[in-house]
Amino acid sequence: MREVAVLGVAMTKFGNSEKTNLEMFAEAGLEAIANSNMEPRDMDALFFGNCLGDFEEGQLHMAPFAHSELGLRTDAPATRFESACATATVAIRHAALLVGGGVYDAVLAGGSERATRMGTPLATRTFAMASHAQYEGPAGITFPGVFAMAAHMYAGKHNIPLSELKRHMAEVAVKNHFHGSLNPKAHFQKPITIDTVLNSMMVADPLQLFDCCPFSDGASAVVIADAKKARDLVKKPIYVAGMGQASAGPLYVQQDLTRVRAREASIRQAYGQSGLGPKDVDVVELHDCFTIAEILALESFGLYDFGKAFDAATIKETYLGGKVVVNPSGGLKAKGHPIGATGAAQVTEIVEQLRGECGPRQVEGARIGLVDTLGGDFGTVCNIILRSRP
Amino acid sequence: MREVAVLGVAMTKFGNSEKTNLEMFAEAGLEAIANSNMEPRDMDALFFGNCLGDFEEGQLHMAPFAHSELGLRTDAPATRFESACATATVAIRHAALLVGGGVYDAVLAGGSERATRMGTPLATRTFAMASHAQYEGPAGITFPGVFAMAAHMYAGKHNIPLSELKRHMAEVAVKNHFHGSLNPKAHFQKPITIDTVLNSMMVADPLQLFDCCPFSDGASAVVIADAKKARDLVKKPIYVAGMGQASAGPLYVQQDLTRVRAREASIRQAYGQSGLGPKDVDVVELHDCFTIAEILALESFGLYDFGKAFDAATIKETYLGGKVVVNPSGGLKAKGHPIGATGAAQVTEIVEQLRGECGPRQVEGARIGLVDTLGGDFGTVCNIILRSRP
Repeated sequence: MREVAVLGVAMTKFGNSEKTNLEMFAEAGLEAIANSNMEPRDMDALFFGNCLGDFEEGQLHMAPFAHSELGLRTDAPATRFESACATATVAIRHAALLVGGGVYDAVLAGGSERATRMGTPLATRTFAMASHAQYEGPAGITFPGVFAMAAHMYAGKHNIPLSELKRHMAEVAVKNHFHGSLNPKAHFQKPITIDTVLNSMMVADPLQLFDCCPFSDGASAVVIADAKKARDLVKKPIYVAGMGQASAGPLYVQQDLTRVRAREASIRQAYGQSGLGPKDVDVVELHDCFTIAEILALESFGLYDFGKAFDAATIKETYLGGKVVVNPSGGLKAKGHPIGATGAAQVTEIVEQLRGECGPRQVEGARIGLVDTLGGDFGTVCNIILRSRP
Repeated sequence: MREVAVLGVAMTKFGNSEKTNLEMFAEAGLEAIANSNMEPRDMDALFFGNCLGDFEEGQLHMAPFAHSELGLRTDAPATRFESACATATVAIRHAALLVGGGVYDAVLAGGSERATRMGTPLATRTFAMASHAQYEGPAGITFPGVFAMAAHMYAGKHNIPLSELKRHMAEVAVKNHFHGSLNPKAHFQKPITIDTVLNSMMVADPLQLFDCCPFSDGASAVVIADAKKARDLVKKPIYVAGMGQASAGPLYVQQDLTRVRAREASIRQAYGQSGLGPKDVDVVELHDCFTIAEILALESFGLYDFGKAFDAATIKETYLGGKVVVNPSGGLKAKGHPIGATGAAQVTEIVEQLRGECGPRQVEGARIGLVDTLGGDFGTVCNIILRSRP
């Protein structure tokens, strides 16, 4: 395998947008290509992520239309990926695999989602199609319910009083909103307090409104290329050190909701490929769709022992300036979560962190960063480890 | 790139099914793995195609659930592809690229679709989401209309009276239904006459009901593996000689509906990679979603000059026993068209033809076969050339 690098990265502002998926993706895609000092005709393929364009806009088969908006070559094929919330990460991973394998020299990869037009209750129900429609849907389960169960199980398993866990989860939200307040692209840019969380509407006990990430509109794209080519084109290419992707089926095959099997398999692949481990990681963008999800992820990565990550935000270890900075972008929680775009925005943040371009939210001396995206109720996990030196 | 082979192939009977997408795919997938003399745990990844599971069954994110039904390993990731009707071909192409690149040794690839429950008028409208929702949808365009326009343009461009072209198109339907009558897996297994076509309901002038393929339920899957490994496992591995995939955006960027730009770019890639040309092809499974589509495809392949393929079925050149056999399975027209599964079923037919396993519809001495799948209104084309010898 050839060494693979990320060149240009870009994201739209996340939040509420009047633009279509294709318009948002064109904005991000063209910016990522321009930031790579390349032209649309230099792209050998487009790996495009989108989850629910058919429900959002009556648009299936969006990849070739994104291709056309960007002015790519006819012989540079456009392919759509969908892995629920892990969609764009999976698209980027496959782009990197095919660049690494010598099939393509440069690929534009990313995604777009336009979720806010549906309104929250309908969006929650629509997104729940990413859980098992035959065995979970009829039970009325939606994602807040799944993660609420995980929180209960975590509290029970580790003997943490639920009221105590709730305060620690709230601290995760406070941290990510603080980080988001430093990110001009974030959906929410206002700091909150622990009381904001604990006084917010109950969604699915113990998760309150501010334990949950929002539905957002947005797009993000990155250019993946042969590292040799990359060094001629941009000042600071960022290198793909290792990647993982794993699948664990529906909820009914999960053995323990506090241990995400697909994540444990995926991170093992990524660490194995990179020769790196949790001690090497300086900065993490992880899948905090709910506050409890951040806690579970940190434990799967080996950054904390199982049952030990619950107070990481409370004791400031995961804040800017902490031991390992988690979600400096604001995470899904504050930066926002346009599901088909999320993974590419995570890669964008890590790349800009490793380049030292993040201004007030810069993680000092960050050299190695980890991207983590979860799809559905634990069905898919995809990880990408990036580093600033080859 | 390593040499890549197709081992086991399988498809469910196409038609109307009471089974879910996942149940159908499990049937095809397990059979393809068993036919490869392998076990589910031997698969390194699943590349799963599905177009409209969310509309059909309220099921998004279907790949990890298919993975779970099949009992694949957690560290063998499942990824969903969607490229409208070319979905499964695109999934298979990416599987072959990653096996060729050494990332995986064996991948299960294919797809599933459950379209009949929607009923035809709703399905037509739902499938039309694969055309451009912003610029084509509001005009009320659906696929029969697009291909009807192509037929009018073809008749005009090549000075063929429309009534004459209609008879030749009807002969394509007669041929494919005859071939389908020899295929126990086909949706329609009854021969028809030219009068059946010309007396059928008008759908979109000049296309009558029997010019159009049906909506079908079905699944199909194939195992793609390193050719070296393949030779130890099965008696007759079939080799991937060359592949292509190209994108041409929405209808409004097409210059001439009688020339499918994405197909011309895609087939050029496949011929180039394989070192083969139209003269080498013995058998073709191509995208006859409408009878006119078969005529257009034959010309893009260089099997006929432009404007010359219209009477190929009439003069029996594309029949079993003809110069180049086209759609011996019955094609989309008679075998059926479960959109997310179609490309894998085309590969299945070509593999069984090259192995000499097709009984009454066997193409004598077939050594080289071509798969062609079109997505949307000319937005995506994917081609795979297979051969019986390495």
